[in-house]
Amino acid sequence: MDCELCSRTGGELLWQDSRLRVVYVEEPGYPGYCRVIWGAHVKEMTDLTEGARAHLMDVVFAVESVLREQLAPHKINLASLGNVVPHLHWHVIPRYTDDPHFPQPIWSNAQREISPRDRVANTATLAGAIAAALE
Amino acid sequence: MDCELCSRTGGELLWQDSRLRVVYVEEPGYPGYCRVIWGAHVKEMTDLTEGARAHLMDVVFAVESVLREQLAPHKINLASLGNVVPHLHWHVIPRYTDDPHFPQPIWSNAQREISPRDRVANTATLAGAIAAALE
Repeated sequence: MDCELCSRTGGELLWQDSRLRVVYVEEPGYPGYCRVIWGAHVKEMTDLTEGARAHLMDVVFAVESVLREQLAPHKINLASLGNVVPHLHWHVIPRYTDDPHFPQPIWSNAQREISPRDRVANTATLAGAIAAALE
Repeated sequence: MDCELCSRTGGELLWQDSRLRVVYVEEPGYPGYCRVIWGAHVKEMTDLTEGARAHLMDVVFAVESVLREQLAPHKINLASLGNVVPHLHWHVIPRYTDDPHFPQPIWSNAQREISPRDRVANTATLAGAIAAALE
């Protein structure tokens, strides 16, 4: 099996426990974009036990809280798709009214150029805030 | 406030309780597409209490289970976006390798025409199965 989320971290590691990890995604125009990646190669949320599912969602919502506090986005987008990489991972994406695709999903056609902006996510700050929220 | 999810059901009603509803979305090429819509006008998951959040996710995962059992999709896609309509709602979308956008998200450019297919979701059957899973 050649799964990129089994063989690679998938971003800059911000937090992890024995079951999952939170990584920072470097996506131009999307400061603060994080993914929460389940450790084991599992395809669907309903393949997890109820307890595992609750733990994964608790971490997704902790990341959402931290991103809202730290970056004050206009909206948070949450998604678990996995059509290309069928290994459970959640996208947690801060959205701004002037981001490249707003108000469309980030997977649609861009609505505008990436604007130079002063919003920069400091990954050490995010990592610390996520750890504080979860530990 | 003029919110379409406050003023309209948003699809064919499959199930509801005092806090939320499950509706069937008529989207060409996407049999089984459901939405789980929170009753009150709330913007983000982390605006809900922990208990309310858990309840909403329990229903999302119950719908995922029913769609998997009834329709055997290749993958389930889950998303809470709300950029256009900032009233909490989850998309629960059965995906097939020959659907219009696979393996891309349904919000990206279509990859192919809608194929005539024998997959048809019976909304009465789905409604019954969701009720059985949740009651």
